[in-house]
Amino acid sequence: MSDPVLTGQVQAGHLLSGWRERADSALAQALPDPQSSPQALHAAMRHAVLLGGKRMRPLLVHAAGHLFGVDDDVLDAPASAVELIHAYSLVHDDLPAMDDDALRRGQPTVHVAFDEATAILAGDALQSLAFEVLAGTKVDDATRVALLRTLAVASGAAGMCGGQALDLAATGNGSALPVAGLERLHALKTGALIRAAVRMGALCGHAGDDDLQRLDRYAAALGLAFQVRDDILDIEGDSATLGKTAGKDQAQDKATFPALIGLAASHARLEELRTAMSDAIAPFGERAGALAALGRMAIERDR
Amino acid sequence: MSDPVLTGQVQAGHLLSGWRERADSALAQALPDPQSSPQALHAAMRHAVLLGGKRMRPLLVHAAGHLFGVDDDVLDAPASAVELIHAYSLVHDDLPAMDDDALRRGQPTVHVAFDEATAILAGDALQSLAFEVLAGTKVDDATRVALLRTLAVASGAAGMCGGQALDLAATGNGSALPVAGLERLHALKTGALIRAAVRMGALCGHAGDDDLQRLDRYAAALGLAFQVRDDILDIEGDSATLGKTAGKDQAQDKATFPALIGLAASHARLEELRTAMSDAIAPFGERAGALAALGRMAIERDR
Repeated sequence: MSDPVLTGQVQAGHLLSGWRERADSALAQALPDPQSSPQALHAAMRHAVLLGGKRMRPLLVHAAGHLFGVDDDVLDAPASAVELIHAYSLVHDDLPAMDDDALRRGQPTVHVAFDEATAILAGDALQSLAFEVLAGTKVDDATRVALLRTLAVASGAAGMCGGQALDLAATGNGSALPVAGLERLHALKTGALIRAAVRMGALCGHAGDDDLQRLDRYAAALGLAFQVRDDILDIEGDSATLGKTAGKDQAQDKATFPALIGLAASHARLEELRTAMSDAIAPFGERAGALAALGRMAIERDR
Repeated sequence: MSDPVLTGQVQAGHLLSGWRERADSALAQALPDPQSSPQALHAAMRHAVLLGGKRMRPLLVHAAGHLFGVDDDVLDAPASAVELIHAYSLVHDDLPAMDDDALRRGQPTVHVAFDEATAILAGDALQSLAFEVLAGTKVDDATRVALLRTLAVASGAAGMCGGQALDLAATGNGSALPVAGLERLHALKTGALIRAAVRMGALCGHAGDDDLQRLDRYAAALGLAFQVRDDILDIEGDSATLGKTAGKDQAQDKATFPALIGLAASHARLEELRTAMSDAIAPFGERAGALAALGRMAIERDR
């Protein structure tokens, strides 16, 4: 007899790899033609999005929609939109005036491969494209508006950009930040978009408030776990596997979980978050297998 | 007996100043609280938007909506949204990697008043805020989606960002650009957002296709006129009146109308565009007085 847990994990793995392919293909189709003018802008936008990435956010959109039986065809638009926002944020974060990173996913960052002005513009245009793509989601107009508002709020000053601003303020003086401040920083910087991804998938399935709240608890825990793991990898990982420079957080005196609470406590925090995720999605039963697998990925990944 | 043309112009002037006050007030309300965290980000966003500006795009939203009897209360959201996009584009255009401007509307630019990283983020957050505000427009959901799509397309690679990329490519080699290329550049860089402003006002009034097309011809002519006038002012204006550095285009060998076709032909082109605007809005009669006044402002302004 087969092990039901293992069978569930294999099924989740199949779903996730199918959705990952969909996401890559939907993104390639949404991005502007690299042969048409202005070519440098289009090429920079494609470089930012198509050279890899885990596609965690698109996968979350699909996995959340899957709970409510939403067609993948409907979920392609919100999945692409949230990844376009994520990709633009990386382009801007990597700029010399921000984190000044030359390497991302093992490739030259956009301002290195092109130039700074093109990187700024490519990021700007990717953000616009996200909302354009989202406006075309194959759902009723009321749901479209809800999707658009969700993504806009999560991207802005009360979400991702706000978190990045808190991060800038803490950099160079990171060890002075209290843990609660660091958790708030990440709840905005990474968490807001991850929660938006899960919420958008559920909104496409007209999920009720109770389910939206359960999923939001899952997503908040996942977002934080993702970041705690990121901080741990900056210390324990190596640049080749990561595809980016390891040890940078320490060098810049960034606020990180290991710096504030130590490595052991950071690992323990990850386990707490693993439990929080499981508890939140338990009521969904087997259909939440893909969400569970994404939770494990966030916690166990090595890049 | 009073002169009907003069009376119409006075009435249009009253409308425009009322709408300008509404726009300032709606923007101040839409922007995040400067006292709340992250304060530097919020302050930079407010600096970018609230320190003046002609509010040309909000006025166009109101003037277009006025044709169809739309409540100003409904138009506040699209008017704010298009100005937020415009404001963010100025913040990013002024960055050292782009036009490297220290002065805007007689005030230090955002990266000078704050820092480069904050300016990048403030621009990003202003773009998100535009879509958030627009999603709250007090119209039916189908119209909201149409507004959101209109603004997203106009802002991105096929619109404003695309035009800015063409401008970057032409800078330093501006005199080599053919006039048609320069007109395309401006049709994207300035024209797309101006056309979106007019279209959004009309969409709120459920304008028919014929009216949308007439208004689009008006807006395209106005956008180009605005830019031709800008190029002329860079030569004929002075920095104090302009609130920005005059003579910069020539110094950077930017593509401009005076550089390509001369000053006299540039003035003649402005008069052609004046006629094109009048012809396009003539069928709307007296209700188009505010649109006519905005057309005159674009052509006759000295800053």
